[in-house]
Amino acid sequence: MSIFVMVNGIPGDMGKMVAETMSARGLNLVPFSLTGEAIAEKEVTVAGKTIQLLKPSTRENAIDGILKDYPGLICVDYTHPSAVNENAAFYVRHKIPFVMGTTGGDREALQKLVQDAAHPSVIAPNMAKQIVAFQAMIEFLATEFPTAFEGYRLSVVESHQKTKADTSGTAKAVVASFRKMGFDFDDSQIELVRNEPEQMARMHVPENALSGHAFHTYSLDSADGSVHFEFQHNVCGRKIYAEGSVDAVLFLAEKIAEKAARPFNMMDVLRSGKMK
Amino acid sequence: MSIFVMVNGIPGDMGKMVAETMSARGLNLVPFSLTGEAIAEKEVTVAGKTIQLLKPSTRENAIDGILKDYPGLICVDYTHPSAVNENAAFYVRHKIPFVMGTTGGDREALQKLVQDAAHPSVIAPNMAKQIVAFQAMIEFLATEFPTAFEGYRLSVVESHQKTKADTSGTAKAVVASFRKMGFDFDDSQIELVRNEPEQMARMHVPENALSGHAFHTYSLDSADGSVHFEFQHNVCGRKIYAEGSVDAVLFLAEKIAEKAARPFNMMDVLRSGKMK
Repeated sequence: MSIFVMVNGIPGDMGKMVAETMSARGLNLVPFSLTGEAIAEKEVTVAGKTIQLLKPSTRENAIDGILKDYPGLICVDYTHPSAVNENAAFYVRHKIPFVMGTTGGDREALQKLVQDAAHPSVIAPNMAKQIVAFQAMIEFLATEFPTAFEGYRLSVVESHQKTKADTSGTAKAVVASFRKMGFDFDDSQIELVRNEPEQMARMHVPENALSGHAFHTYSLDSADGSVHFEFQHNVCGRKIYAEGSVDAVLFLAEKIAEKAARPFNMMDVLRSGKMK
Repeated sequence: MSIFVMVNGIPGDMGKMVAETMSARGLNLVPFSLTGEAIAEKEVTVAGKTIQLLKPSTRENAIDGILKDYPGLICVDYTHPSAVNENAAFYVRHKIPFVMGTTGGDREALQKLVQDAAHPSVIAPNMAKQIVAFQAMIEFLATEFPTAFEGYRLSVVESHQKTKADTSGTAKAVVASFRKMGFDFDDSQIELVRNEPEQMARMHVPENALSGHAFHTYSLDSADGSVHFEFQHNVCGRKIYAEGSVDAVLFLAEKIAEKAARPFNMMDVLRSGKMK
């Protein structure tokens, strides 16, 4: 099966990495990318291919020709929070299946758009499928065995690049699951590590990942200190999101081929593995 | 609800700890304990109570009086693998609900006995309910999302007191779940740490737990090394099993009160929390 992919958000770092990963995993990169109005470059070379950048003002005229040349094209969006909703509207208007890797924007409006149109898409706040699986696993624990860790103490510490001011949304989501187990634990109790020497010494973040990482440790300790559980997910860089985006494209292409495409999320992508 | 508990296996260390834990958590310890024929002591003081030891040769004559004095009595068995089946037969014959914390013996015969008699009991190879919950969580991951960690590398290391020669059964059970996710990982690849200096330096086992601990670390690493997941369950001593045994007694007493008692296992005890 030959799958054409247009990665939007080039020349952004994430867009370029996603395009390279798509290419490395055998998908056909089309030589176009939607970009912002303010971008100066007209073309960029990614994965050995020259990619023409299309601004909002030029894309409407170009898209029909592109769709004709690359039938079945799937868009992957790693653009900007401010572009999420208008890009999604563009994809729906031109009936282009898409994977939305960009965070932010009006998520409710985004969901309404794809649901109303029953538009083939994968939208997820986190494209790292292993992290999504981890979150589902903790939610399973909380739902199935809410009393298993009664009397235990929870502690959560997360380290991200020092430029990230706010608490990780993933950590908050995991803590919400733990609260279902009776832990009296507020989001403000999540410990943030943003000091680089501490990130290396205590969290074991490699030096070359200081500028981009997500290291999380969740600990459960019995009251008498004799039992310690620990769950870590440590991500350097953003490759995991690029890989997850490829998985999402492959999943969406499969659903389109089966004529079963509709709006999906990353849990659907994960669960699909079950049926193989 | 006043619950009478007879802890069998005193004066063994585990039997004594279980008796103390039962007492600490508000259960009524009856002043008798089944013990082995070779035990020299006639009575032992546990949790401030004098416990009369009953040998196989004397217990048949004593049991009717005990059951009369302590109605609704539940037995908790932490005796010896060689006593598992004869003790279970004794409990069934005298219609005494029981929690079997002793490992070994003929487990198939044990299950057949309680199933045929629909005998109120909790039998589990591992009374540490948090560990059982962890195992269920990994099994959930393997069953629901078997492709989530495709291309990752698994490594498993477990540390136990140096007198434990064989590989942990818990580690083997967890690895069996991981194999469902496609990991080509043999039980022989589980790394055993039995060297005390290494246990302290590498596994962070406290010195006072060298003689009794179970420290397990499961790691998943992406092929490019950018993503690392780690799951640890580190247990010092055997208190966790004593606490789990109390949970099992409370669960069984509740089921008896609801007239819904039958043979159960630790998963049933764990799941019961869900309904509360």
